[in-house]
Amino acid sequence: MTIGIIGLGLIGGSMAIDLRRNKFADHFLGCDNDNLNAMTAQRIGLVDEIVPYEELIKKSDLIILSVPVSAALRMLPDILDKITDDQYVTDVCSTKERLNDSVHYHPKRKNYVASHPMSGTEFSGPWAAIPNLFAGRAGIICNAEDSDIKAVELVRKMYDCLNMRVIYMRAAHHDVHTAYVSHVSHVISFALALTVLDKEKNEKNIFDLASGGFASTARLAKSNADMWAPIFLQNKDNVLSVLDSYMEKLQSFKTALENQDEKQLRALIEEANRIKRILR
Amino acid sequence: MTIGIIGLGLIGGSMAIDLRRNKFADHFLGCDNDNLNAMTAQRIGLVDEIVPYEELIKKSDLIILSVPVSAALRMLPDILDKITDDQYVTDVCSTKERLNDSVHYHPKRKNYVASHPMSGTEFSGPWAAIPNLFAGRAGIICNAEDSDIKAVELVRKMYDCLNMRVIYMRAAHHDVHTAYVSHVSHVISFALALTVLDKEKNEKNIFDLASGGFASTARLAKSNADMWAPIFLQNKDNVLSVLDSYMEKLQSFKTALENQDEKQLRALIEEANRIKRILR
Repeated sequence: MTIGIIGLGLIGGSMAIDLRRNKFADHFLGCDNDNLNAMTAQRIGLVDEIVPYEELIKKSDLIILSVPVSAALRMLPDILDKITDDQYVTDVCSTKERLNDSVHYHPKRKNYVASHPMSGTEFSGPWAAIPNLFAGRAGIICNAEDSDIKAVELVRKMYDCLNMRVIYMRAAHHDVHTAYVSHVSHVISFALALTVLDKEKNEKNIFDLASGGFASTARLAKSNADMWAPIFLQNKDNVLSVLDSYMEKLQSFKTALENQDEKQLRALIEEANRIKRILR
Repeated sequence: MTIGIIGLGLIGGSMAIDLRRNKFADHFLGCDNDNLNAMTAQRIGLVDEIVPYEELIKKSDLIILSVPVSAALRMLPDILDKITDDQYVTDVCSTKERLNDSVHYHPKRKNYVASHPMSGTEFSGPWAAIPNLFAGRAGIICNAEDSDIKAVELVRKMYDCLNMRVIYMRAAHHDVHTAYVSHVSHVISFALALTVLDKEKNEKNIFDLASGGFASTARLAKSNADMWAPIFLQNKDNVLSVLDSYMEKLQSFKTALENQDEKQLRALIEEANRIKRILR
């Protein structure tokens, strides 16, 4: 089987590493609109060949679209226009509803599987690709009933091969969930970094004191604008609504602190501690 | 030399491990108002003996006060009342100004060194103590000019022994800095945990999708109320002021998103990315 990966960054590159190692396919084609990314991906062995976009579409049994969500919105209908009945396409985008809607009436809709492997790091580019990035994480397949059963089966096998737990859900539901457990974490982290960087303009040594706690909370603030601005925009309503809830919780903390209400502060912290059940 | 550790949790316990290993002292006494903590600390070898509070004060050359900041505020004047001229006391508290002020006019003020080893984890208790917790981190000594030069030298050596970088600063300055690079990170994380836990009441499977990004941002939400409620209260003004700046940054993100202003979203993210310079 030949896999064609469009977009040779962290996600596409890391998938290539494990899909090759676990013998899911024997030939990997790649293309990227950034030439340096493309050349690097070939040099470090993520893909066997760099080919033009049209040629990749022609020669691949399964196409993995791993580009920012705004680019995916433009490219997916075009790819579906060009593939034959025996070719399949999947994507790895962090927002699913708009992309899914955009091809809902496409005659080749059945050849597409809307999916999202829930993993990543704060780094980007082919040099950020690592083995085992997906092991144990959730591999989500959305609106599976709109896809050919053979196509769904192929993507399910691909996620098995990456050692992911496959979860099926509606695209709309996916976007609400990811707003909660991923997208808003990024906004929070960006805002923290901005707050401290602002202060640093007057206080040169503030980062001498940065401890592991700060590093952990601000880690996601290293994430890339090309990827994240489109995600926030495509999941705007959910992200705004979760941000509102989040700001209410912050306000509860502020009020308790303003009132020096130790009992309420402790209650809020102890309620938050229930997260231990989830995070090991 | 005999070290007496009052409060046998994560910080006191981890200090004991490395101070013993690096031969800073040959005898370690401990006490803790929680009996299970005390017995555990002895059983796992953090201290040689558990002794009553009064006896610990009498027998220790250096007393390390590693209790929550509210308890430290009550205990420090009492300890200073009881020690002789040849005994020294230091603390490890995350807020320094109020504690420092509370003993400013104490006749034994010179025997006390206000300090803060900037490290930790989200876990607590003697079973959370680990080796090398402090290596490479900042060991802060506040208002050193109010302490006997011999006392400061002793604490500096202790931090050397823990492989810390010693930094001297004013207590007030310390509290502003830690509000930025530690305390507000905790508020942020608690609020995120509360937001997602609230949502989970209606959506049972939301945590199936929690990725590494969420785990990183919410990690500090496991932190203990006994320790953190008093820190927020003692550093109330600074924490509230940083929270205000932080909420303004969140509001900038919200506004850019509401206006679908991709250019502004990207500008905010790219500005936040400058944190890469600081966080490796």
